[in-house]
This record gives sequence, C-alpha cells and structure tokens, in this order.
Amino acid sequence: MRDFLPQDKARREAVAASIRRSFTAYGYREIETPALEDLGRLEASEGGDNEKLIYKVQRRGLAPDVPVLPGDAADLGLRYDLTVPLARFYATHRAELPDVFRSIQIAPAWRAERPQKGRYRQFTQCDIDVLGEASVVAEVELIAAGTAAISELGVGDVVVRINDRRILNALLGDFGVPEAARSAVLVSIDKLDKIGVAGVAEELARLGQGGAAGDVAGLVGWLEKLAGSGESVAGTGRAGVGVGESGAGAGGSGAGDGGSGVGAGASGHFEGTLDLLPGAAGEAAAPLRAIHAALRLAAPGVRLAADPTLVRGQGYYTGPIFELLHPDVSGSIGGGGRYDGMIGRFAGADVPACGLSIGFERIVDLVDPAALAGGRRQVAIVYEAGVDPGVLLAWQRRLIAEDADVRVVPRIRNQARLLDGLAGEGFTEVLDLPGAAAAPAPGEPLPALRTLRPAGGRQP
Amino acid sequence: MRDFLPQDKARREAVAASIRRSFTAYGYREIETPALEDLGRLEASEGGDNEKLIYKVQRRGLAPDVPVLPGDAADLGLRYDLTVPLARFYATHRAELPDVFRSIQIAPAWRAERPQKGRYRQFTQCDIDVLGEASVVAEVELIAAGTAAISELGVGDVVVRINDRRILNALLGDFGVPEAARSAVLVSIDKLDKIGVAGVAEELARLGQGGAAGDVAGLVGWLEKLAGSGESVAGTGRAGVGVGESGAGAGGSGAGDGGSGVGAGASGHFEGTLDLLPGAAGEAAAPLRAIHAALRLAAPGVRLAADPTLVRGQGYYTGPIFELLHPDVSGSIGGGGRYDGMIGRFAGADVPACGLSIGFERIVDLVDPAALAGGRRQVAIVYEAGVDPGVLLAWQRRLIAEDADVRVVPRIRNQARLLDGLAGEGFTEVLDLPGAAAAPAPGEPLPALRTLRPAGGRQP
Repeated sequence: MRDFLPQDKARREAVAASIRRSFTAYGYREIETPALEDLGRLEASEGGDNEKLIYKVQRRGLAPDVPVLPGDAADLGLRYDLTVPLARFYATHRAELPDVFRSIQIAPAWRAERPQKGRYRQFTQCDIDVLGEASVVAEVELIAAGTAAISELGVGDVVVRINDRRILNALLGDFGVPEAARSAVLVSIDKLDKIGVAGVAEELARLGQGGAAGDVAGLVGWLEKLAGSGESVAGTGRAGVGVGESGAGAGGSGAGDGGSGVGAGASGHFEGTLDLLPGAAGEAAAPLRAIHAALRLAAPGVRLAADPTLVRGQGYYTGPIFELLHPDVSGSIGGGGRYDGMIGRFAGADVPACGLSIGFERIVDLVDPAALAGGRRQVAIVYEAGVDPGVLLAWQRRLIAEDADVRVVPRIRNQARLLDGLAGEGFTEVLDLPGAAAAPAPGEPLPALRTLRPAGGRQP
Repeated sequence: MRDFLPQDKARREAVAASIRRSFTAYGYREIETPALEDLGRLEASEGGDNEKLIYKVQRRGLAPDVPVLPGDAADLGLRYDLTVPLARFYATHRAELPDVFRSIQIAPAWRAERPQKGRYRQFTQCDIDVLGEASVVAEVELIAAGTAAISELGVGDVVVRINDRRILNALLGDFGVPEAARSAVLVSIDKLDKIGVAGVAEELARLGQGGAAGDVAGLVGWLEKLAGSGESVAGTGRAGVGVGESGAGAGGSGAGDGGSGVGAGASGHFEGTLDLLPGAAGEAAAPLRAIHAALRLAAPGVRLAADPTLVRGQGYYTGPIFELLHPDVSGSIGGGGRYDGMIGRFAGADVPACGLSIGFERIVDLVDPAALAGGRRQVAIVYEAGVDPGVLLAWQRRLIAEDADVRVVPRIRNQARLLDGLAGEGFTEVLDLPGAAAAPAPGEPLPALRTLRPAGGRQP
C-alpha cells in the first residue's frame, strides 16, 4: 500500500475531479458506499479469484482467550471492487432512485495481492454504471462518456475494442464446443494477445483430445482467417486489435508500433469483421452493429474495433463487452460491459445493467500534471526570525486576497536549497519579509515579488 | 455505516472541495495514506478509548482448520483517526518534505462504535497539521485557515474557544493538586459544560476526600470567580463560552440562546480572563496572549474566547488547545492544538507539531447545497420509444457542448412523476425528443427547451 506525497496526491485529485466532471456532463451522479461490506455477501458474488483476496475484518466481541477458527472470526470484509457494493446499494435504495439510474463511483478498493509492479493492495476504482436500461443506449453512452473523460485528460486518443458474450457463445456453439468445455476454451482464446493463434491452437488441441472440445480444427481455422483479415494485426503481437477498426480518428494508415498497444488498422473494417462470423455468431452480432452505427452519430471521434475474440475475464457479463486501449499502456486502461443477471440477484427482480470502469491508477501516470494545474498564483513568504507572527500572517492574508496560494516559510542559511525546494513544490513567486516588517496598511500597494525559476534552477 | 445517495454525495464532495481550496490557499498541501496501518502501531499510539474501537484485519495465510487466539489472528487495522497515519507518514518521508511541513488530509476513518445518533462507524476526517514549527505562527495560521474554511462554506461565524495545557497544569499546581490526581481532576473540569460549577464542585469534593486532590475549595472558588466574570455564561449552560471573547465579529451584546451553543460575550474580555489566572498559571498564559494579539492583525474577523477550563480529551496535547463553536451545533465543529511529543515517537527526533481538525460530518449538515452548486445548465432529454440511439446521444453531445449536464430519460406514461423526479434531482430544463427525431445538423440552432419548475411543482 502506498503513501501519496503532495504532488502525487494533487495529480490524483485533479484527475478524479476531471473524470467526475466528464461523467456528470453525461447525466451520471456520484454515490458513495462504505468500505466494509458483509463478508458473506462479498464471498457470494461471482468475483472469481478476487474473492480469495478479500481483507477480512475480525468480528467484534471475541473473547481474547478463546481460540476460534479463522472462518468463524470474521464478519465484515473490505470491498474488492465497486460492483458488488453498487448492487447492494441499488437493492437497498431502489425506491429513492430514478427508473434508469446512472451512477458514478470513484473510490478505493482493497485486494490482498502479492506485491508486484502495477498491482496495489489499495487502489482507486472509477466506475460508471447504467441500471435499468436494456437497450444499447447504455453501451453507446458509456463508451461516449468513457472516451470523452479520457480525452478531457489530454492523454491522447484510445481505441475501443468491442465484442459480445453472445457472439462468443454462438461461435462456440457453431463449432460444436460442448457446454462443459466452453469456459476452458474461452480462457484459451483470451490468451490470443499473448500466445498468438499458434499457441491457442496448441492449447485447444490438448483440450480437444478425444473430441471433448468440439471442432477444434474448424475453430482454429476461423481464428486464422480472422487474424489474416486485419492489416496491422500480424506485427503487433495483439491479435484482434486493429481488426475491424473504424471511426473518424483512425486515419487509415497503420500506426501500430509492435507490442506497445494499439495498432490502428484500416478504417471501415468494423462491419467486414463481423461479416466473417459464421452462422449463429453472425446473427448475434446485431447489437454490435447497432452500437457501431449509433456511435458514428453520437461520438464520431471514437475509434471502435470489433474483436470477436475479446473475452474479458468476469463470469457475470451477458452481452456487449469492451476495453479501452491506449498506445502507451500495455493491457487496457478501461473496460466494461453488460451484466444483466447480477443486480437482480441482490434486488430480487431482473434489472438490466451495464458498466464501464476507467483504469484510474494507469491513467494517473499518463497525465501531465501541468495540464491540470489551477489558475492561482503560488507565493511563498520567506520571513526573517523575529518577525511578529501577526504581521507575517497579515501579509499572508493580504496575498490570499490577491488570488494566491500562500505558504509562510522561515528563512534558512542555505537559501539556494530553500528556493529550489519551493520551486520544486510549484511556488513561482517570493515575498521577502524582514524581521522588522510592519503589517500591510489598508490600501497599500503590494510590493514587487521575486520570481522563482522552475525547479532545479538557481536564484540570482 | 452509511450509503450516500447522489444529492448527499454531491454536497459532501462540494464541501470537501471547498475546504481543500481554502486550506490550499494557506499553503497547505494534501497527502494520502492507506486505510490500513500496522495494528501494533495503531494500538501503541495514545489513542485512548479509540484504540478499543479499531477494526482489526485478519492475518493472511491462516490455516482454515486451526483455531487461533483473536489476538494472534490480526496484523492490520483500519485507522481510527488521521493523526497516527500522519506521524507514520512523516517519519517515512521526512527527507522528501519541506522543513516545515503543512499537510491536508480529507479522508475516512473507522471506529467500531455502538450505533448512536451522530456517531458513524465510517466517517470523514478533515485535518490540517503543521509539523516542524515551534512558534505560535502555527497556532495563529491554523486558526485563521480553519475559520476561513468554515466562513467560505457560508455557514456563519464561529467562536474559537482557546486554552493551553500548560495553563491547566500550572493551575492544578497552583492549587496543590498532586500529579496522581490531575487527570481525574481534568476529567471533572471537562464536564463544566454539562454539570456546571456546582456539579464539578461535588465531584471534586468526592475526589478530594482525605486531601488527595489538593486545595479543592480554592480551585472551586476560582472556577466560581471565573464563571461570574463572563456576562453571558450563566444563562447558556456552557460555562466558559463567551468568557473572554474578543474580535471584530463579536459586536458586544450577548447573543447566547440558552443551550444551543455560542453566547457572544462582551468584547475585550480576552485579556481580562487571563488576568484572573493565579500564580504560575498566569505566567503560562503568555502564548495565548501572543496568539490573541497576532490574530487581531492577521484575521481580525475571528472571535477568540479564552477559556482556562477547556480540557479536550486527548492525552497527547502539550500546548495551546482550541475548539470551534457554532451556534447551530451542540458540541464543537472543529478543534485542535499543539502535540509536540507525538511525531517524535515515530520520527525518532523531536518534531514540534500542531493541528486542527474540522468536524466534516457536522459541517456537511449545516451547508446549504444551493450555495455550492456549479454553474452548468441541468438538462434532461426525455425521449420517445423508437428514437434512434445515435440520434438521441447526438443530441446529448450537442447539449453537453452548450455547457450543460445532460441526462437522457425514456418517456413514461406518468409524466408528472417523471418531471417531479427530474426536478428533485436538480434538472431545470427539458428537451422532448420524438421517436422520429433526426440528429442535430451542424450549425442548426438549439430548439427551445422547456423549463422545469423546482421540485414538488407540477408542469403545465
């Protein structure tokens, strides 16, 4: 778990505020739920491996001298995501919420991960969800809002990779994969990015010994045909990305740079990629075609890439699924999809649901802090020993009224160190206050302030 | 623990943003620490009763079938305040921080309280602290910044009640209270608000049987003299408040309204109240006189009330202590003081420290949400079934570009219910979109929007 020093914290707060503002513009409203939820609820939520990473909170009132089984000693847990709390929130408050409820959640979650790069035990999640909307209005709006929020942060354009769980199911059906083998086959297809078609073919062959995985040769042949259809797929090591990409921002020529992320494929491939789907899978592609058509009207700058091999891990997805890809980030910087079954399990009635999550921790690293700075002057009052505290802080008050953020700082012998430190913290002006200074008289003009050079520079 | 619905959450975010902005203007910078700290550290932090309320997190890797003692089964805990984490943060990062470090923390803390009104198991704390500043510059600035932050929220003026732990110690010394009895005597004096001088006299008499509490009669006599010196004290049931009040905002005449909080005493009493202190206690009042004088220059609107009976519970205070009182709130809406010993225990070297905490949960209830609203238009697009999703969301996009927050909402049969709900959520304009609508053409002027009456009204 991490501490955030002032500069990092300022960047995080500015990113959160910008995202909050973007989503609010699309009619979403922020809610907040407690960090702790009932452990039983967290452990029965289709969270997969994440459920194994729950921090469990000890039950109150345990006798200190009586040994207990760990399973009996905990009754609360720290949430491992924001979806389970949202479902619980909606079930509790449904009567007070609009029929179609659009929520924002920007809040921490906790997982007891083994320490590794890019994985944190406490991390901020940033979700929007539409509950109660069965049509693709939800998907289209989520994608428009999510890409707008990222664009507003000035980190460059993303590509939206999209698929539909119903396409995947139909595809496996078309190739005769029995129900029992489907989840193993999907896990394998999900690795296309990393191991390529050849690697997947090998895994499927192993799975398919004795015919248990259906028409493996047919499925692999189809994956090869799909991979061959996208201009920039071969070189990137990311099968599927670039496949079927369309949108005003694409520009046509391949911008893939081998392994770093997004390869911009030829424009107009979106429909063509879906046309490659056989039989029932092709029929299941109608919602994606509708999303594609609507986004061309509603968010013409969005680059949408159809990828019939996109799986996304969570078991609860039931319809369209999507990921946001950025050229500077391996893996995705956001994603989401439709999960129509889950809210109903808490609410006791079917509630269509669709959500998008922004990878807050990854995006924070992309953002240029200077682009997010506020407009106020940053002034340090460097004062000599002996100055009257009232006089000192009267000057601070005077400068704050001039639209400045003002830090009072005692003078030290090593002035270069002092000023470098202040510049490093973003201060750009200095008022030197001598020990015998008097308070500013009403109406007295401000004295000239010294300008601080940016961090690292020395003062004259 | 509480869920926050959109309107409550918006108010909380707006209050937090306003306080953050106010403190930033005084040169403070926000930091963030993890919710979980080492349990051993939390339990060895002079947190008094709060340590008994720590939520303890189960150690990882416990064998599920082996019973363990509760004390051996937990290694982390949810923080119960933000001061222990600050001390740990400062000890860890001191080399990266300025010599005098000013921090803001606005973050949740957790206590396993019994459910009762106004006590929450998860609550937001809102602290500023100055580490490394031994002079009253810290106290004066904290009081100026804290009162400015509250004033910025438009909730009316506060009175700052101030004392000094060294005055209390000297006072007990002056009346011969032995070290062993001092903390019990302070606990009793701390109840003056609730039980009055007579009640305290009774408790002290019990404590003092056999002379174990020193010159009880002398101490009680002095408390009576003090209570008699403040014009508005008698009627308010809050001994001490109004004693020695001064400041531009006081206005002189008693505004006490019996029990609700602040009674505005006569101006100019501040010094007079300190003049009542006997012997060593009088000498210990010099820092308060300095704070008073400095605030008259640096923050002339602040109403400061000297109260030599203010105790504040925490054992770690070592110098000036203060509370912020508001006429609409029983108890305080903020407070703080100097705690020079505590950071040193973590940092391994003496570090002077002084902090102020704003009672976020209490202040949120005082704030008028309308005063915090942003400037954007609030528009709902009410659409008929059958409208093309792309057309619908193209209109949303168009209105967002006109500086509006825009929610798309399907038309329902009960239009009054729909519009009341939207008005209740703060929407003020409606665009009706028929099923056959076309997307807005570039340059096409906006159609007229219907104006929504405020919540509760019916539409024409």
